[in-house]
Amino acid sequence: MADLTRGIDTAELGSKMFRFMEELYPICRSITGEGIRETLDRISKRIPLELREVPTGTEVLDWTIPKEWNIRDAFIKGPSGRRVVDFRDHNLHVMSYSVPVDTRMPLSRLREHIHTLPNQPDMIPYRTSYYSETWGFCMQHERFQQLIEGDYEVRIDSSLEPGSLTFGECLLPGASEDEVLVSCHCCHPSIANDNLSGIALATELAEHLLTLPLRYSYRFLFIPGTIGSIAWLALNEDRVDKIKHGLVVTCVGDAGQPTYKRSRRGDSLIDRAAAHVLARSGEPHRLVDFSPYGYDERQYCSPGFNLPVGSLMRTPNGDYPEYHTSADNLDFVDPRSLADSLDLYLKVLDILENDGTFRNLRPKGEPQLGKRGLYPAVGGQGSGSELVARLWVLNLSDGEHSLLDIAERAQLPFHAIKDAAQLLLEGGLLKPAVPDSP
Amino acid sequence: MADLTRGIDTAELGSKMFRFMEELYPICRSITGEGIRETLDRISKRIPLELREVPTGTEVLDWTIPKEWNIRDAFIKGPSGRRVVDFRDHNLHVMSYSVPVDTRMPLSRLREHIHTLPNQPDMIPYRTSYYSETWGFCMQHERFQQLIEGDYEVRIDSSLEPGSLTFGECLLPGASEDEVLVSCHCCHPSIANDNLSGIALATELAEHLLTLPLRYSYRFLFIPGTIGSIAWLALNEDRVDKIKHGLVVTCVGDAGQPTYKRSRRGDSLIDRAAAHVLARSGEPHRLVDFSPYGYDERQYCSPGFNLPVGSLMRTPNGDYPEYHTSADNLDFVDPRSLADSLDLYLKVLDILENDGTFRNLRPKGEPQLGKRGLYPAVGGQGSGSELVARLWVLNLSDGEHSLLDIAERAQLPFHAIKDAAQLLLEGGLLKPAVPDSP
Amino acid sequence: MADLTRGIDTAELGSKMFRFMEELYPICRSITGEGIRETLDRISKRIPLELREVPTGTEVLDWTIPKEWNIRDAFIKGPSGRRVVDFRDHNLHVMSYSVPVDTRMPLSRLREHIHTLPNQPDMIPYRTSYYSETWGFCMQHERFQQLIEGDYEVRIDSSLEPGSLTFGECLLPGASEDEVLVSCHCCHPSIANDNLSGIALATELAEHLLTLPLRYSYRFLFIPGTIGSIAWLALNEDRVDKIKHGLVVTCVGDAGQPTYKRSRRGDSLIDRAAAHVLARSGEPHRLVDFSPYGYDERQYCSPGFNLPVGSLMRTPNGDYPEYHTSADNLDFVDPRSLADSLDLYLKVLDILENDGTFRNLRPKGEPQLGKRGLYPAVGGQGSGSELVARLWVLNLSDGEHSLLDIAERAQLPFHAIKDAAQLLLEGGLLKPAVPDSP
Repeated sequence: MADLTRGIDTAELGSKMFRFMEELYPICRSITGEGIRETLDRISKRIPLELREVPTGTEVLDWTIPKEWNIRDAFIKGPSGRRVVDFRDHNLHVMSYSVPVDTRMPLSRLREHIHTLPNQPDMIPYRTSYYSETWGFCMQHERFQQLIEGDYEVRIDSSLEPGSLTFGECLLPGASEDEVLVSCHCCHPSIANDNLSGIALATELAEHLLTLPLRYSYRFLFIPGTIGSIAWLALNEDRVDKIKHGLVVTCVGDAGQPTYKRSRRGDSLIDRAAAHVLARSGEPHRLVDFSPYGYDERQYCSPGFNLPVGSLMRTPNGDYPEYHTSADNLDFVDPRSLADSLDLYLKVLDILENDGTFRNLRPKGEPQLGKRGLYPAVGGQGSGSELVARLWVLNLSDGEHSLLDIAERAQLPFHAIKDAAQLLLEGGLLKPAVPDSP
Repeated sequence: MADLTRGIDTAELGSKMFRFMEELYPICRSITGEGIRETLDRISKRIPLELREVPTGTEVLDWTIPKEWNIRDAFIKGPSGRRVVDFRDHNLHVMSYSVPVDTRMPLSRLREHIHTLPNQPDMIPYRTSYYSETWGFCMQHERFQQLIEGDYEVRIDSSLEPGSLTFGECLLPGASEDEVLVSCHCCHPSIANDNLSGIALATELAEHLLTLPLRYSYRFLFIPGTIGSIAWLALNEDRVDKIKHGLVVTCVGDAGQPTYKRSRRGDSLIDRAAAHVLARSGEPHRLVDFSPYGYDERQYCSPGFNLPVGSLMRTPNGDYPEYHTSADNLDFVDPRSLADSLDLYLKVLDILENDGTFRNLRPKGEPQLGKRGLYPAVGGQGSGSELVARLWVLNLSDGEHSLLDIAERAQLPFHAIKDAAQLLLEGGLLKPAVPDSP
Repeated sequence: MADLTRGIDTAELGSKMFRFMEELYPICRSITGEGIRETLDRISKRIPLELREVPTGTEVLDWTIPKEWNIRDAFIKGPSGRRVVDFRDHNLHVMSYSVPVDTRMPLSRLREHIHTLPNQPDMIPYRTSYYSETWGFCMQHERFQQLIEGDYEVRIDSSLEPGSLTFGECLLPGASEDEVLVSCHCCHPSIANDNLSGIALATELAEHLLTLPLRYSYRFLFIPGTIGSIAWLALNEDRVDKIKHGLVVTCVGDAGQPTYKRSRRGDSLIDRAAAHVLARSGEPHRLVDFSPYGYDERQYCSPGFNLPVGSLMRTPNGDYPEYHTSADNLDFVDPRSLADSLDLYLKVLDILENDGTFRNLRPKGEPQLGKRGLYPAVGGQGSGSELVARLWVLNLSDGEHSLLDIAERAQLPFHAIKDAAQLLLEGGLLKPAVPDSP
């Protein structure tokens, strides 16, 4: 039985993930274009990543791949000739997918194209207009209020033309062709928690799994949100049923408590494994039911696919005030939270890798553990938790209960039950109940 | 999809129901006789009511229709010759079904025939003796204690003779022959909440439904308690299975919190619809399981019928101190509570009329709502509850989840889900999963 | 229907059980040998007990019957020649199954053979070494610390030789060959709550049931823990399926709150009956799920047998500080707690004896109870709990609900439902739903 968490220094990996986020932070990503290509390029330096290009106009499920968008510069110049909004200061200043503009207009008309957050006046909002051709700027409300009446020069040096949508795919083959899907969106510009944190964690995870013998094959997807998962599902419709478990990785770097959002099925193994790990962490956490609002789990869990894909995050999208603003920056995330998130992912995957159902070969009465060196020689004292784990595994290994079932029933951590099962297997008291057990 | 609550001014209807109660309050009703006939006559002026007469001696299930009882006057005259108890003051003073009496007796013997409430000394109790031929008076305990020793004249000018039991039935035909039963007892004399309130609400409800196109047929029963529902069940034994949902209407005019008593089945649609409406009301309320003590749900939910009939009331019978006393009068009820109760009934029936199961016609991935004008053009902001309702309907419309299922899962009010389904139906994204959907 | 609790003076029986414990307390029991034989001999003076002897070396399931152990004397003499530890003071001073020793050694070596409780310095621990041939003494830590350096004389006058394992079996035949198992371990030396209390209660229970007509046959087992139940199961493997319900009797004499530990099945009738009795007791109590650590339920509930055997106790083994020490003595238990435990056992068994499923012979509508004298003649008043019990039995006696189901649903004590069913049976309104009802 593999142990995914053995020898891992998560603290060190936390710093490593943070540094990767720092490297990717300045890039102006969108759902298509050079920003996402450059991001995937950096990832591909660390893990074996295949890049896919899907041409503009390709029909994918109910959707059509949009034009490719690229941007070089954008600004608003005030009556004084000074740049009052400047893309070079922050790439959130331009609404993603803004069409090219080069014109002058009075403030009264310009206002309709400026997005601000009146209740968060010092933050720049993040806005997009992927499927409606228009343009816009985003800025701090406090600076917006200082704009004086007059004539403004408005320039967006972008292009919106036929091209392609790009995503990256990394397959780590395991003993079985059954797959675990790990999916993260990488279409947001300079936003840290959403979702550079997810990109960094998924890359780290892939890099680590690469070194281990695996039961499952792991498929990592680095995709633009929504249209990316829809494109992948459309291109892989005939092999989607190989996915047996999956996680959407997002918002894993903030200091908030871990949150697991269940798959639409609600009781699949990934849901139970994540709930077990969070419950056994001893730390505050949240378990929330699936809802059809969020990230790419919306697509994986649409009724026509209904894949067992949940989302393990920290503070969920929309639940923190910095969400989708310039305040979701590198100060908002920290290596320690990243490390903690990675640790949870490894523990969840460890359950997927090691869960199985066994059969007690001496089911009538307890087998005499003493003569096998598995019971304390002096009786009358209390039992240690190792002995208790063995007794639970023996008692419930009737072919009906998996190790995770037993861990939940015994209220012991999965690894304690796994270790007991290992010992009993070696002692000849247990055998796998089905041939494909780990 | 019909909307039962559209254009309703429940406040105005509250006053109208209260006025109808005022009109019916003075009549001395019992399980048979002129009092119930006159009551049904007044109802029949408002809704199409068929009156049934079941002759004394008719066998109905395990019971026999009793003799018909009528009363003109009754009193007790004290030693001074003054009426110390007088039927003309309050019809509760005579125990219902008292046989005729015209005699004199000392207080010592008379006491055995007088019912009082020592713990509620200013209230007249309500007592009956339908199935044991005797007589009695009911009075305030504080006045009973003032009776002096001596010889009393006792007169009850009643008749108990072969006749018939009367009840009223109003059928509002709908698109389907499947029926919703609305049943209220109208055998109590001058008692307001129990059950003039139920009579007034049921009449108002029938009057309103009369104006609408209906999915179900609605059967309103105005019956004497117990023997009335038993008679109706006996006479309709072969068609009882047309009843798909039902409510017993009682105690709907007091200011207490709404209470829904589940049917014996406990999880029928009527039970889930009432629970949903109460939970979504945002007001304090109670949900109680079926018990075999109460009103006519005892008969509808007997094991041989086991109909899905619950009871939506305010304070349940027996749970308020004024219950079955002269204090359950017009001061104890109010138009506002009646209006609120009617509103709840309409919302519950609206679910019955509109619930259905649909199938998402674009089940793989989310359909692109934006190109259909069902998604905000600018992305990056939060979602409104209307969009969330659409996403829920799309996600769960797999032929397995009804709109009520979806509303419960989404924690949104039924009407929000119904409206979203309507929009998606019109947008060609949904179709009924079964032919008979609304 | 039998009533197991009728005419029982549990207070008197509490004193009687306590006196029996006083009688058995001085005997030095172990899993084999004269101590357990003498104990069984005393029990057999009160109830018909068959003694079984299973020879050393017999293979029983995965185990082998060990050698027989007997002890006459044991002591440690200090450098001064005085006995510093003396078996004649307390039989816990010698580790059970200690091999014979007659030697001298310095304190430094002797220490390895002495067991104490540093955190409970005034108590002698209870230790055993059944399956590993060694020897040891147990003593108070505070006295252990006073031992001076020097040369000690060590003597254990025991024998460990081929012989047999002894247990007692008492079968009380009932109308059915289906059995209720009552099992208690009697291998502990002078320890009161664990398990002289169980021995005394089981003996009392058998003595009482002996006088009653019984539905089930009752099998009482007085056995050494673990190896005894394993031996019995091995010898009776082909008839184990006659056991329909069972209880392990242990720790029933302390003042702690009653605890029921469910069988591995968790929802068998014994589990539901015990939960009902405890819930209806109105006293604090605990319900705990099965776990594979405890007493002989470990064997009865091993996956190859999976018998519906729970354990009704007070404070569970290991949960009180006096557990497995010299402080679990006659001061730790009291007649009142014993009496209360017996009362609970009788109420639980009363459910087993009387539970059954009936069919309402008048299932359509309520039958008219008034004409059968089962309903109050004057209506309008509240209902007594006796009437409510009758209505519940009628409403739920559809062949699907047992009397215990009905009691739970009605939130009434089982005996109230049983009494109502009895009355309705006599009134011709009920018949057993299956032939073998009580």
